[in-house]
Amino acid sequence: MIPVERSLLARNDAFAQQNRARFQAKGILALNLVSSPGSGKTSLLVATLARLEHPCAVIEGDQQTSLDAERIRAAGASALQINTGKGCHLDAQGVGRAAERLDPPEGALLFIENVGNLVCPAAFDLGEAHKVLILSVTEGEDKPLKYPDMFAAADLLLLNKIDLLPHVAFDVEACLANARRVNPGLETILLSARTGEGLDVWLRWLGQRLRQNLGQSLPVPASV
Amino acid sequence: MIPVERSLLARNDAFAQQNRARFQAKGILALNLVSSPGSGKTSLLVATLARLEHPCAVIEGDQQTSLDAERIRAAGASALQINTGKGCHLDAQGVGRAAERLDPPEGALLFIENVGNLVCPAAFDLGEAHKVLILSVTEGEDKPLKYPDMFAAADLLLLNKIDLLPHVAFDVEACLANARRVNPGLETILLSARTGEGLDVWLRWLGQRLRQNLGQSLPVPASV
Repeated sequence: MIPVERSLLARNDAFAQQNRARFQAKGILALNLVSSPGSGKTSLLVATLARLEHPCAVIEGDQQTSLDAERIRAAGASALQINTGKGCHLDAQGVGRAAERLDPPEGALLFIENVGNLVCPAAFDLGEAHKVLILSVTEGEDKPLKYPDMFAAADLLLLNKIDLLPHVAFDVEACLANARRVNPGLETILLSARTGEGLDVWLRWLGQRLRQNLGQSLPVPASV
Repeated sequence: MIPVERSLLARNDAFAQQNRARFQAKGILALNLVSSPGSGKTSLLVATLARLEHPCAVIEGDQQTSLDAERIRAAGASALQINTGKGCHLDAQGVGRAAERLDPPEGALLFIENVGNLVCPAAFDLGEAHKVLILSVTEGEDKPLKYPDMFAAADLLLLNKIDLLPHVAFDVEACLANARRVNPGLETILLSARTGEGLDVWLRWLGQRLRQNLGQSLPVPASV
């Protein structure tokens, strides 16, 4: 890696630490959603927001257009769109500014939908608690091996579009085995944002993380 | 864009011009295949190689693994894999070196399968005659608007996986209209690498380009 890239990443990491401290201070659980273009991130968010009874805010990243933020606002959550222009990923400084403007309430869930790109967002910490990777079953079971950095950086893999399994040549077990070769600790959930199958498992995962997060961010009683 | 990026692109462009001159001198038609991960580039190449009676060579780009080059070799063409590691796109210097090692015969068709990434490869000229963009119908009709640089850089759009159209919510006309808004001169072909539908149109496009290319690279008779 050339020195310029290293200093760019170091600068990003400093902003990411700032974001993380601010999120923790307000008990905000921030999730960084990463995937290829077209894996269904926004559809999954819309389906999630419709079912989740918890204050949510969304930061949307795309090279161009505010289509995704409009879809999220139509689903009833506050959303802000970042257009990266030539850029191939969100960075921590931009996310920090957007979070300040959105100003989610204490204890809120903040979804950050990254630019659709299975490579570059892996290297850029945004201050999130977890990277959640969405892979759709139309993309092929070899992806964890071909794009190992992203699968190594994620804590949870959502295997989306399982309603299409009867129509594509996709080996779920091989995909999960490939993912675990790259990241043995990766959690996995199979779901379909379209049919709703598996969404209950994803909502339970979110509920657990929200409870853990609020537990951690509650002020420690003076007597302890 | 920061100056470092500009000098990186200028350096790449110099190598790309070198590649282009070498390809033209040998009458080689080089095509740069770009897309999201999992759009079906390799499957399309395998189906194409099985039907095309013309000398072909393939340069494969991925962050990791040589799975794609192995699939191409099994299909009977010579192939070389470039692993980009942390890199998010092929560059002209690497492609030049690979082309030298592959050494395709005069008049050959050289496919360059880029890293699956709808952002970064748009900016990096490899010395190709055309960028061919593969989009699958599972990715959503909004992609041309969200990733306009890539759609503007391409000469041909292959809309792949049309066998899945009955099972997904994808508006073909809206997608093509979005693509033409970004790039009015973009040619489009609908096909399915899996069922073979539309491959004849793609093979005809290749045949035309090969004939044009050989016409151009034939030495001009002394009497003209």
